[in-house]
Amino acid sequence: MTKKVVVLGAGLVGNAIARDLHKDFDVLSADLDRGRLDTLSNIGVATKKLDVTDGAALKATIQDSDLVIGAVPGFMGYETLKSVIEFGKSIVDISFFPEDPFQLDDLAKEHGVVAVMDCGVAPGMGNIILGYHNARMAVDSYKCFVGGLPVKREWPWEYKAVFSPSDVIEEYTRPARYVQNNQLVIRPALSDPELLDFPGLGTLEAWNSAGLRPLAETIKIPNMIEKTLRYPGCIEYLRMLREAGFFSKNPVRIAGVEIRPLDLTAELLKVPWKLKEEEEDVTVMRIIIEGQENGKPTEIVYTLEDHFDREQSVTSMARTTGYTCTAVANLLLDGKVQEPGLYPPEMLGQDKSNFRFVLDYLEARGVRYQIQRN
Amino acid sequence: MTKKVVVLGAGLVGNAIARDLHKDFDVLSADLDRGRLDTLSNIGVATKKLDVTDGAALKATIQDSDLVIGAVPGFMGYETLKSVIEFGKSIVDISFFPEDPFQLDDLAKEHGVVAVMDCGVAPGMGNIILGYHNARMAVDSYKCFVGGLPVKREWPWEYKAVFSPSDVIEEYTRPARYVQNNQLVIRPALSDPELLDFPGLGTLEAWNSAGLRPLAETIKIPNMIEKTLRYPGCIEYLRMLREAGFFSKNPVRIAGVEIRPLDLTAELLKVPWKLKEEEEDVTVMRIIIEGQENGKPTEIVYTLEDHFDREQSVTSMARTTGYTCTAVANLLLDGKVQEPGLYPPEMLGQDKSNFRFVLDYLEARGVRYQIQRN
Repeated sequence: MTKKVVVLGAGLVGNAIARDLHKDFDVLSADLDRGRLDTLSNIGVATKKLDVTDGAALKATIQDSDLVIGAVPGFMGYETLKSVIEFGKSIVDISFFPEDPFQLDDLAKEHGVVAVMDCGVAPGMGNIILGYHNARMAVDSYKCFVGGLPVKREWPWEYKAVFSPSDVIEEYTRPARYVQNNQLVIRPALSDPELLDFPGLGTLEAWNSAGLRPLAETIKIPNMIEKTLRYPGCIEYLRMLREAGFFSKNPVRIAGVEIRPLDLTAELLKVPWKLKEEEEDVTVMRIIIEGQENGKPTEIVYTLEDHFDREQSVTSMARTTGYTCTAVANLLLDGKVQEPGLYPPEMLGQDKSNFRFVLDYLEARGVRYQIQRN
Repeated sequence: MTKKVVVLGAGLVGNAIARDLHKDFDVLSADLDRGRLDTLSNIGVATKKLDVTDGAALKATIQDSDLVIGAVPGFMGYETLKSVIEFGKSIVDISFFPEDPFQLDDLAKEHGVVAVMDCGVAPGMGNIILGYHNARMAVDSYKCFVGGLPVKREWPWEYKAVFSPSDVIEEYTRPARYVQNNQLVIRPALSDPELLDFPGLGTLEAWNSAGLRPLAETIKIPNMIEKTLRYPGCIEYLRMLREAGFFSKNPVRIAGVEIRPLDLTAELLKVPWKLKEEEEDVTVMRIIIEGQENGKPTEIVYTLEDHFDREQSVTSMARTTGYTCTAVANLLLDGKVQEPGLYPPEMLGQDKSNFRFVLDYLEARGVRYQIQRN
């Protein structure tokens, strides 16, 4: 009998996930917004209007499913993940919530379910790749450079996203964390720019933004860093805006009214930073793993340059995030991950056949990681 | 008997003017702000609290003077100049008001007075220099590059001024006017950047800002342009801010309140753009006049690099503006300009002895124009 998957959230990524899983499974897509669901029901996906914060309704929606996908906005991600675990369902989550996830490990074990968190492209695929190699070599250094960019470069930002400017700016103001010589290092965002060349795109610029997520705690590697990739130069504008106070949350009094500069900035950038409907994007990632393999100094480089899918009108951001999630969903549905608990994606990458499966699954969808060994 | 001069306005420039004239004349400095006057009365200058918009009070203040200096803020400059003319007094003005000055020519003739407008460094000295050479050669091209800069370059702006950010930003948004091949050309502000080297300062960048003032109408020369000088690079930040809407006067609605982005921007830039008390500034000007002199192709280049006066704590901006004004005031007080009417400064420069007098007067105060003929 065909397995049942409930996808919570039908935003850009949730939509791509539901469409992809729909090929092989009975999918129910649930979202508060009827409009988002319509595009899915048009292609035969079952849909349901659902407020995930309504516990009873959530329970009823997922109760006869074999797996749940969490693709709700980050601010409600943690509570949704917790509820799904409590209702006894396994889940693969891409909501990228800010809360500490590890408190949910005991809960998952208690309820006998598998919960995979942060299962997108970065975090997500980077962790899976590191997990694989970390089980096979003495990794000394892990570097991940990643960014989502518009294909058409428009001055001055040469940047567009499906996220709101305030979420993006948050990454440009929070200090970045990385690990250097086994020590956690905190650096200001927008620091340490460096240039990298990509075969199909030219030169990009990488710099510190929010940095490592829980990876800093789950894997002990002497040097670990994640940097944001953008077209070169826009960092200067961002630094200037931050320096001049345009990212500040401290209200300024203007003509009798109080205003947070950040709010005005986010409002003004809504239009220029918005990836328009049908506008093509590209996802770029480079992972550099260095260490000793079989006693030999080894460097392994993964490079991803993934493009907007014109045929199906799916953004590269949704492809690279969503298909990593659906690959892992397939692993769980095939019974490849049985032991209950909370799984950061690096744990899943340790198993060679699981790792190969994910890479092949992505490759079949055109998401190709080029691998180079030096 | 010592002649009497009333200086209207005791701001930075009015203060320097009063101090300079005080050496040779009976000076009365008048301002609405008592605090500004105190620094002058401390050194023996007569002072008077005055609201220049109060006609009777203004008349009483200037009635037994030999000359008036107009150094009030631009927005009240035109009305003040008009009142002084109507009260039958000659005046040298540096208020740089936006109104059309030429309607005052008949008024000045009617009242038998001499009124010199725009008598600072630029406009002002540039016009005097052009007036001199235009009477002696067939000028084909006049270029004026001018800027006031802080000596200490602080990222990202490397710019400070005594003017309010909103006045400065106005220059960065209003289209610039120049004359090319006898045609008036309108170009966006912040356009056509070019690099120029200055012996004592290094490379600076010049670009279109507000451009020519009435010069475009008073002198017929095929090519005339005035550009703003800044340290290289800051134009990029300004263009970005303008492009992103931060200079806009169109209100944006944020959390229920309406705000003009320009107002927030001007507020945020108040501190970083403020030339602090005792902070050293430099005034830079390069004038390039090209044409035929005695049938030979000739290029004449004037270069000014004037520094903050540490001894007397006078900004270079006040020195270069104020001493041009006091030089011309001396010409009038010496009876060198008798014919009633409104004088744009280029008219004064036509007379060789007047021109030499102004250059020598400035030189005696350390404001040196280096002249090169090619």
